Amino acid sequence: MNIGTYSYEEYLHLVKSFHGSQAPGLMIGGFMVDYAMNSLPEGEFFDAICETRVCLPDAVQILTPCTIGNGWLKVFDYGRYALALYEKYSGEGIRIYLDPAKLSQWSEVNGWFMKLIPKKDQDSEKLFHQIKEAGRAILSKHPIRVQPALLQKEKMGKVAVCPQCGEAYPVRDGAMCRPCAGDSPYVS
Amino acid sequence: MNIGTYSYEEYLHLVKSFHGSQAPGLMIGGFMVDYAMNSLPEGEFFDAICETRVCLPDAVQILTPCTIGNGWLKVFDYGRYALALYEKYSGEGIRIYLDPAKLSQWSEVNGWFMKLIPKKDQDSEKLFHQIKEAGRAILSKHPIRVQPALLQKEKMGKVAVCPQCGEAYPVRDGAMCRPCAGDSPYVS
Repeated sequence: MNIGTYSYEEYLHLVKSFHGSQAPGLMIGGFMVDYAMNSLPEGEFFDAICETRVCLPDAVQILTPCTIGNGWLKVFDYGRYALALYEKYSGEGIRIYLDPAKLSQWSEVNGWFMKLIPKKDQDSEKLFHQIKEAGRAILSKHPIRVQPALLQKEKMGKVAVCPQCGEAYPVRDGAMCRPCAGDSPYVS
Repeated sequence: MNIGTYSYEEYLHLVKSFHGSQAPGLMIGGFMVDYAMNSLPEGEFFDAICETRVCLPDAVQILTPCTIGNGWLKVFDYGRYALALYEKYSGEGIRIYLDPAKLSQWSEVNGWFMKLIPKKDQDSEKLFHQIKEAGRAILSKHPIRVQPALLQKEKMGKVAVCPQCGEAYPVRDGAMCRPCAGDSPYVS
């Protein structure tokens, strides 16, 4: 059983190195990305959407050329455990999701994913065993077409020096940069 | 000259492998992350903030344990080329930014960063040479404290099966998941 071009063990190693721990969501995410890549025409350039911020974006970043910083991966905070890979110009592609309807045979995965089992009562060994056993059996897929507005690469446009902080910022944001205008992540 | 625990050339190799290309912003980003890490007490657990979506998040993901998927990296779309590393409980840390006031000696970096030179007229070799020569000389730093609200780990809370799509979603989002409520990235 491979995940992308890696063995399960190689992928596990990459997960620990990049993500910091063997998260259940990242192991399932590996199967999801692999399933999506196998459902696309070979050699095609694709972009990616993650429908959750949690774990799944790292599976995409480990296994595909799409990252947050290069803009080929977009993350939406919908809290759905789903991803899409799609041709970057047409927006046509495939969506893979963790399907609750397919979890009944996999009690530990179901208990973890649906938050029925408190973390302290989870059987970690059983959970990872079931994830590996299940592979694609807990996933579903369907074709999608991405909204045209999301296909255009967003340009930053002109930059200027903010009169408050003296740093470069996108002119489209107004007379000063957004943090100086009040939207700052810092207290001081 | 090292970037984190890597030589410049090793870091360049990682950049090409993860990000897909040797982007100028990622090379500067390497110096920024390195500068920030060197300004923090050793052995401390820190989280990261990027003040732009473009390029910089990948420098953080390559050089630190902080990623989008593990939640230790937060990305704000302010369009400022700046990052902060901070102690995850107190929120105290250091902010590094590419300082326009320090660019006058570095014409090609200035032309690229302030968008004064159209891409087709950029001298790529000169640009990368200046970036490497400049290192920290084009950066500034100051201490910051992150807003307390950003220090709390956001919990997803209870999940339920969406009556529309049949997928798991956070109950806090209402009677159905956000994409089914109209906020979908897909046409169909």
